[in-house]
Amino acid sequence: MSKIEVALGIDIGGTNTVFGLVDREGNKKLTDSITTNSSEPAEKLFNRIYEQLNAHNLDEFEIKGVGIGAPNANYFRGSVENPPNLEWDDTNVVEVSRQYLEVPTVCTNDANAAALGELKFGAAKEMKNFIEITLGTGLGSGIIVNGDVLYGATGFAGELGHVTAVSGGRDCGCGRRGCLETYASATGIVRTVSELLGDSREKSVLREIPFKELSAKRIADEARNGDKIALEAFDYTGLVLGEALANAVAAFSCEAIVLFGGLALAGDLLFEPTQRYMDEHMLEIFKNTCQLLPSKLPSGDAAILGASALIWNEIDLGKV
Amino acid sequence: MSKIEVALGIDIGGTNTVFGLVDREGNKKLTDSITTNSSEPAEKLFNRIYEQLNAHNLDEFEIKGVGIGAPNANYFRGSVENPPNLEWDDTNVVEVSRQYLEVPTVCTNDANAAALGELKFGAAKEMKNFIEITLGTGLGSGIIVNGDVLYGATGFAGELGHVTAVSGGRDCGCGRRGCLETYASATGIVRTVSELLGDSREKSVLREIPFKELSAKRIADEARNGDKIALEAFDYTGLVLGEALANAVAAFSCEAIVLFGGLALAGDLLFEPTQRYMDEHMLEIFKNTCQLLPSKLPSGDAAILGASALIWNEIDLGKV
Repeated sequence: MSKIEVALGIDIGGTNTVFGLVDREGNKKLTDSITTNSSEPAEKLFNRIYEQLNAHNLDEFEIKGVGIGAPNANYFRGSVENPPNLEWDDTNVVEVSRQYLEVPTVCTNDANAAALGELKFGAAKEMKNFIEITLGTGLGSGIIVNGDVLYGATGFAGELGHVTAVSGGRDCGCGRRGCLETYASATGIVRTVSELLGDSREKSVLREIPFKELSAKRIADEARNGDKIALEAFDYTGLVLGEALANAVAAFSCEAIVLFGGLALAGDLLFEPTQRYMDEHMLEIFKNTCQLLPSKLPSGDAAILGASALIWNEIDLGKV
Repeated sequence: MSKIEVALGIDIGGTNTVFGLVDREGNKKLTDSITTNSSEPAEKLFNRIYEQLNAHNLDEFEIKGVGIGAPNANYFRGSVENPPNLEWDDTNVVEVSRQYLEVPTVCTNDANAAALGELKFGAAKEMKNFIEITLGTGLGSGIIVNGDVLYGATGFAGELGHVTAVSGGRDCGCGRRGCLETYASATGIVRTVSELLGDSREKSVLREIPFKELSAKRIADEARNGDKIALEAFDYTGLVLGEALANAVAAFSCEAIVLFGGLALAGDLLFEPTQRYMDEHMLEIFKNTCQLLPSKLPSGDAAILGASALIWNEIDLGKV
């Protein structure tokens, strides 16, 4: 009997590393996870990944390739460079992985992997030009141009989280000011609430919560309860994000922008103002040419689907 | 004897239409021009172009294709749509041209043609990822990704002149506010001077010139004479442009940005502040990855070289 063709997707996080076998249609055939143990070198991590993978019965599978998603991964070099949550030197993860499984192997960062997951299995199937925006602690983006990730000259293209949204605006972790992610992200909306609480005299239950305990989820919950500060925070987030997305459309003329991640789960609270301000700021020729869509990747499996989609796309484009 | 392979480049302007034969190396073998006569339909214009072309002795040439540059040209549809300076309905110029010369024919807008000219014959030879910025009355841009123009979903990608540079800023011809071209263009710097004259009490010979007679060239001349208002206007132009270009690098990770057109002829007056503010606003990982370069297209021939490069690139990429 012929074997089932699958891709091995590996997503390396600061705490956990998840991996799984995914077929061409995006069906998960096997998933598993291990703790990353961020202080141990990459070689040991991959040793444990493959040990645990091989403990499963893999007889019915033919692994066509390996896709690795990781923070700061560089597709061109196959390496993970100064990863924020791992005590690694620059490490060529593609070479390390191929010591265990000698098949076509590529790596990319999390946001690009999410974009590829969306392209192959999610909200952007059949699309050639779209932008995936991941709204987590920060704002990541993966930009698909002509059916493939835009890597640019360095491999690091698509840093929309660090375009200047407000000149001279909020202090950003990158050392600059006013970056989009200081407004449009889970932490950005917390900062917005904090500013609004100072600026306005409006009553709000959010006045009872210390800054450090505020979360995007809590703000969304209170917005649904009608809290005016929470609602205004979503409106302002939509304003900054919508304007930035209209700018992205002027540059890329993408057919869709897909919002993914924690803050995107707020649904209409985020989508309604974002769409409204995006339309308002859109250049006439691009009006009604770009949809704003929620991700269709199941949040628990997005990392594995994205990492698998990475190598499936390479195979489909004949690049490996 | 074998014939010389050339491309026919046609650049349709509101006043004049220039055309010429250009070989693969960018050598002009023939150039000519006619008045556009903006009130006459496209069919008549092309009739006159080919009549005048055929009046030359073309025996030694083999025309491999035709590239047409025009305002509002759409590469995908082969058409010119609502051109600002021509009394045309939407016109399929590719079809019209092919009635006279049945060879591979494509059209694109002026900024994309300039980018292709730079790619094939100018400052961006051998590059795969760069952005051409044309600084004329407005600001146009042609974005090269993986060696070809980025067209996006609509054919109109690359409208960097209409990204919002200053939220709620200057009134733009597009009906919106704060667009980059209202600051960084020949007309933008005139507006900047006008604002500075109101804002400051600094002496300046520019106070003697009516707004309508101010020009980027005059401002550059006075800046070279040490006029402080003129110098400050270039500094401010560099600030707005430099910040916008740093944002473009975060999105595209291009290896160069090439400045072309009237305002770019101001040389160091523009390049020094633009480079300084671009560096200042650049995300760390992109520092020193993107050069700011002056165009190497001779200004008189840029239109013909760009239009020719358009079809040469199609041929080289095997697209026609």
